[in-house]
Amino acid sequence: MKSSFEFRLEKKSGRGRTGLVTTAHGSIQTPAFMPVGTQATVKAMLPESVRATGAEIVLGNTYHLMLRPTAERVARLGGLHRFMNWPGPILTDSGGYQVMSLAGLRKITEEGVAFNSHLDGSKHLLTAESSTEIQRLLDATISMVFDECTPYPATRDQAQQSMLRSLRWAKRSRLAFDPRAGYGQFGIVQGGIYPELRLESAAAQLEMGFEGYAIGGLAVGEGQEIMFQVIDQTEPHLPQDRPRYLMGVGKPPDIVGAVMRGIDMFDCVLPTRSGRTAQAFTRFGTVNIRNARHQDSPEPLDPACSCPCCRQFSRGYLHHLTRSKEILGAMLLTWHNLHYYQELMAGLRQAIREDRLKNFAHDFSLDYGSENEDRSNPGEG
Amino acid sequence: MKSSFEFRLEKKSGRGRTGLVTTAHGSIQTPAFMPVGTQATVKAMLPESVRATGAEIVLGNTYHLMLRPTAERVARLGGLHRFMNWPGPILTDSGGYQVMSLAGLRKITEEGVAFNSHLDGSKHLLTAESSTEIQRLLDATISMVFDECTPYPATRDQAQQSMLRSLRWAKRSRLAFDPRAGYGQFGIVQGGIYPELRLESAAAQLEMGFEGYAIGGLAVGEGQEIMFQVIDQTEPHLPQDRPRYLMGVGKPPDIVGAVMRGIDMFDCVLPTRSGRTAQAFTRFGTVNIRNARHQDSPEPLDPACSCPCCRQFSRGYLHHLTRSKEILGAMLLTWHNLHYYQELMAGLRQAIREDRLKNFAHDFSLDYGSENEDRSNPGEG
Repeated sequence: MKSSFEFRLEKKSGRGRTGLVTTAHGSIQTPAFMPVGTQATVKAMLPESVRATGAEIVLGNTYHLMLRPTAERVARLGGLHRFMNWPGPILTDSGGYQVMSLAGLRKITEEGVAFNSHLDGSKHLLTAESSTEIQRLLDATISMVFDECTPYPATRDQAQQSMLRSLRWAKRSRLAFDPRAGYGQFGIVQGGIYPELRLESAAAQLEMGFEGYAIGGLAVGEGQEIMFQVIDQTEPHLPQDRPRYLMGVGKPPDIVGAVMRGIDMFDCVLPTRSGRTAQAFTRFGTVNIRNARHQDSPEPLDPACSCPCCRQFSRGYLHHLTRSKEILGAMLLTWHNLHYYQELMAGLRQAIREDRLKNFAHDFSLDYGSENEDRSNPGEG
Repeated sequence: MKSSFEFRLEKKSGRGRTGLVTTAHGSIQTPAFMPVGTQATVKAMLPESVRATGAEIVLGNTYHLMLRPTAERVARLGGLHRFMNWPGPILTDSGGYQVMSLAGLRKITEEGVAFNSHLDGSKHLLTAESSTEIQRLLDATISMVFDECTPYPATRDQAQQSMLRSLRWAKRSRLAFDPRAGYGQFGIVQGGIYPELRLESAAAQLEMGFEGYAIGGLAVGEGQEIMFQVIDQTEPHLPQDRPRYLMGVGKPPDIVGAVMRGIDMFDCVLPTRSGRTAQAFTRFGTVNIRNARHQDSPEPLDPACSCPCCRQFSRGYLHHLTRSKEILGAMLLTWHNLHYYQELMAGLRQAIREDRLKNFAHDFSLDYGSENEDRSNPGEG
């Protein structure tokens, strides 16, 4: 007997929450970080290794999967869980964000988005209905409504028009969604940086009654301060008894700040992508292992980390692997980064349970700056 | 107390042999296949995964390692075993074969080979003495003498001049070798396709008294028939109480045929390189998983194989990964291929112990052809 889709709030610390999402494919402790498995694989990781880092849910990309291997083929091969050997929960995005990023290759109408495949130029139309159907074929545990990610910056009028279109698409997505025990569909709150638009978007979608709510349109260049402002203005309008998901976020300090503002779920390509570009996340900030200062170091990335990368290899060896463009470098750094992110989430959950989230965040920010080599603008996760 | 370097012959079946090489870093059951770890990593594999396939020894490349990260840096970081986290035996080649392949970038003299690095163009000189010293710095369990790999085809005179130079270099390599308990140095028999030259090369090196003997200059385009002829003519002149190593071989049928001719050790990039180009080795021959016939297959590569690739994933998924150029495709196929090679070696050892090597080879050749998609010239391992 499959369990129903539920969110149980366990404990709060300030506005930070810890809880449990139960689904047809197992449960997810929140706050949760979802590694990104774009093309039905979390890049450079065996699924069992992803699980070993502590991840309980992964994300798949509708846009990529609909083109290759196609949703129909995934369905024939038993659904995404069996296909990629990840029996746990999977969330899929709607494809909207990615098709809208295809500058010059797509056209947006009220019906949906017509676009040309980046693989072979073939023509496709993605709509609220077809996105929802594709996610059903993929057997996504959590489907997302088809929405328009409002660009940043946008005028109030642009943000409003975009938000209203997203609302119409959300309604169509909900109608197209096939409710099954243990499966859920999340709405997505849009509205740019305009509080009253965010409120309107949230209220309308609460009426549609989704199993969870995402905050969309952030981590698109607005910076951490504005992102936190928008969360502060939006979060009070989201129900306590549903999970909240901040899409595409982010850097560790973004996640800590968002958890303090009541967010439960996150996804981001940073830990995996950085693992393939020699950047490691540690308690002390980011480390670029290609930097020559590591070439003779017998020390691990982080002596206190229990991941295979840190237990078995030196910075000198990791430096060599990345300089030599060896696949093992990507494998080890990806593993370490995902392990780091999951340890961070476990630490946040524990701090909330013990009602010391503020102290945790304070200690985190002191440590995180101490070795940080990352000089780029925060919030662009 | 480190054990001495020894070879104990356990059993013969025809001319096929099974035995045990004991070294300072552990023992090696023979016949043995050595995965190639060119740049201090068996590409796309964690060392523990290499071990899990059954491999007991890996190979490192002096040429690549002397350039990056350099032998001195490997030594400072504790030697190659600690550097790459492979505590077991490691054999290193002399670098000779690879510098001589640098067409246009190298010059051979009696002293050695002057060459320009393929990485940055920097000038280097590799000699019998420096090659031996580099291998010592790397902490190779088994070092190889610095030799000249006679090209194929070569006239008798060319093959003789080359073989005689290799003998002079072998003598210098032996003098430069620092004998330590549990470490060994192997001579390399050259002589092209000329039996009397092979005999002369073998006899001269037996006098120098190496811990093992390699047959070099094969798998360079001569084809399986000539390769087997040369082994047939050379093997009787090698001592029974030392391991014999056929360098750079090969395809599974080459290995089976060479084991029947008394060879104990092999190395080849085929299982690892093929793993990165979508080619899988199976009991039924090679399978190109990029072939469209696999795209809807829910079947594993080989239902009888116990590797993680075959236990957890379908051909359809592997097809998708390779089409999508995903790292996981290289990881899984490399793992499978190494597992297959090690299972083959274990099967050969068992067949020799039970004195049924001929039957094993017969059954192998019947099975191996049944799904083989490989149409390329055999023997070019």
